[in-house]
Amino acid sequence: MKNRNYLSDAAQNALPSGVRRMFELAKNYPDAINLTLGEPGFTTPRHIIEAGILGLQDGKTKYTPNAGIKPLRDAIAHKLLHENGIKCDPDKHLIVTAGATQALMLAMVTLVNPGDEVIIQGPNWPDYKGQIDMVNGKTVYCKVDEKNGFKMTADLIEPLITDKTKLIIINSPSNPTGGVLDEADLKGIAALVKKYKLFVISDEPYERLVYDGFQQKSLAAMDDLQDYVLTINSFSKTFAMTGFRVGYICANEEITAALIKLHENMIASVPEPMQLSAIEAIYHGEKDVQEMVAYYDRNRHLIVDGLNRIKGFSCLCPKGAFYVFPNITAFGMSSAETAEYILEKTHVVTSPGSAFGPDGEGYIRICYASKYEQIQEALRRMEKAFGVK
Amino acid sequence: MKNRNYLSDAAQNALPSGVRRMFELAKNYPDAINLTLGEPGFTTPRHIIEAGILGLQDGKTKYTPNAGIKPLRDAIAHKLLHENGIKCDPDKHLIVTAGATQALMLAMVTLVNPGDEVIIQGPNWPDYKGQIDMVNGKTVYCKVDEKNGFKMTADLIEPLITDKTKLIIINSPSNPTGGVLDEADLKGIAALVKKYKLFVISDEPYERLVYDGFQQKSLAAMDDLQDYVLTINSFSKTFAMTGFRVGYICANEEITAALIKLHENMIASVPEPMQLSAIEAIYHGEKDVQEMVAYYDRNRHLIVDGLNRIKGFSCLCPKGAFYVFPNITAFGMSSAETAEYILEKTHVVTSPGSAFGPDGEGYIRICYASKYEQIQEALRRMEKAFGVK
Repeated sequence: MKNRNYLSDAAQNALPSGVRRMFELAKNYPDAINLTLGEPGFTTPRHIIEAGILGLQDGKTKYTPNAGIKPLRDAIAHKLLHENGIKCDPDKHLIVTAGATQALMLAMVTLVNPGDEVIIQGPNWPDYKGQIDMVNGKTVYCKVDEKNGFKMTADLIEPLITDKTKLIIINSPSNPTGGVLDEADLKGIAALVKKYKLFVISDEPYERLVYDGFQQKSLAAMDDLQDYVLTINSFSKTFAMTGFRVGYICANEEITAALIKLHENMIASVPEPMQLSAIEAIYHGEKDVQEMVAYYDRNRHLIVDGLNRIKGFSCLCPKGAFYVFPNITAFGMSSAETAEYILEKTHVVTSPGSAFGPDGEGYIRICYASKYEQIQEALRRMEKAFGVK
Repeated sequence: MKNRNYLSDAAQNALPSGVRRMFELAKNYPDAINLTLGEPGFTTPRHIIEAGILGLQDGKTKYTPNAGIKPLRDAIAHKLLHENGIKCDPDKHLIVTAGATQALMLAMVTLVNPGDEVIIQGPNWPDYKGQIDMVNGKTVYCKVDEKNGFKMTADLIEPLITDKTKLIIINSPSNPTGGVLDEADLKGIAALVKKYKLFVISDEPYERLVYDGFQQKSLAAMDDLQDYVLTINSFSKTFAMTGFRVGYICANEEITAALIKLHENMIASVPEPMQLSAIEAIYHGEKDVQEMVAYYDRNRHLIVDGLNRIKGFSCLCPKGAFYVFPNITAFGMSSAETAEYILEKTHVVTSPGSAFGPDGEGYIRICYASKYEQIQEALRRMEKAFGVK
């Protein structure tokens, strides 16, 4: 059974994760500080957990409708209208998914045929590439530039559009760079969409994790664009609910009908107790979000200022998400070698930029969603090992 | 946006569900008795629910490893060894999935390339076809015969094997027919697997719902076959846990490694509280299973005897699952027309055989997992409407 040919092309293309490799290496260091995983350092707010417990106590343990329970779709429609300016009918334009991950996979299966091209930002969240492979599509990387705040703007996208382009994925705030697209950037993309009649997935799980007064706008809220945009979001990052696996897609009526049909074949439905927690998060989680964002913001200043003091690092101050993506070319090694070197010298675990596609080379990703004190200690160790500028 | 061409082929092929259509029609009858959905009529046993509640109370709300938490994989390995005679290493051969549905989808993405052929039983659980469409494979129906207890045996499968055959899916006990494959049938399939070096998915969610002393064997437990068989199972039907969305795949080491990678891109992980409930089910759910199976068995005799008394119906007594698949050709109409006619005359909701692929024509599916009294009332109405033989 050592002949790999029996695996699908998607399985054969699946890259060994550059992040997982760091996890394995880190096991050698009992005092390792792990700043790789994109997971909030907080426990889920208690009242959100309690809503799930109540659901279980009430015996909500059956299949739900494929599209998700109506009260959750109502809550999402309310949220989209009031926070994003997106009008949608919860019966026609919404489906509840197992996180944004399954939402993205479902959207790709529903839109992409083998050979179709999908434009994504490079560097990119690695799962985009894996998902495009799973539908036998072709990944087209739109390389973004640190000098321009890692923005994937219309002028970078347009030259990549061909008659095989099916989909563009935008992701603002972005994983791994923390870069954001402002209203002018989105207007440029909106013009492209109208010009070429292309579909766009706007993947917005980090929309609420923004700083310095920046407000993330939604592409789907722009004039006449709602038919072309699939807005995907999740409760994971905003409310520290990664393990609940609840997300959603808002799309046009025809796409939504197809999403619901294919969702039945992919996972059937999302556990109802988890959906009930999501409702609680929407209606009563705002105070928690503001507290967590304030905490992340403090971490953000700590890590950016700290890294920029240390030899070898040059770090933009990102406006969104909970990642920094410092330039580490001064180390004179590949990003994988640099991440290993940092681990060896400081026992701090980071992700090599190459884990985020070919355009991530020259950088590492550090997640600052963990405890402030951990980040302090990580910086102390790195400062000691590499010296100050 | 009325031009459907922008949807993927899989989305365009997705058939309007013949079962959902009956649901819609049934809304016109407030006293409808719905015998369509394959969902246990029981609430999940309390101690299984409590295990999930404890998990939430303990703040188990983070991502779990893609493969699922180790204690659940240990429990599944224990179950497979003791109940199925399948030896497996929980670190190398197991992945926890969002039910058997996502397990099947994941397995297909991992093995099937566009154009590959997948042999499934006809009539079939409709999601198989939807999943094969999603990976752009080709569905090859192996038509089974009522006269042979709806068995998909090696002699029926072998003529369908071509050089494009990638996978055979067996499903015993079967949805929608309730038919089972006994040890001799499985040995025949085992010989085919060895002869042609083919992969088989053994989809076993109904394995414990068996009657008349029948014991379901697992294909993977047969000599030298474990490398070629992916055993897929779920907690949904056995323990009345449909809404928990927990299932698993046991496969060879190489396939399992690929499944785990692609699972990350498809849904990341399954909520930990749901996994904790599954552990409780394995170690402490046996008494519940026996009570539920005894209840289903009583329903089975009621529905089979009842239908065979009524004009127009001829019903085999199935040895497994919780479905009967009576022949309704005596009504002289298509299965869709017959199901509608039954609904109109009796307000009893059944699924037309055509909802289960082209080979389901001439039959309807009735699920007998609901309350005994409901089935009694449904039979009373049908006897009154159509008369006794």
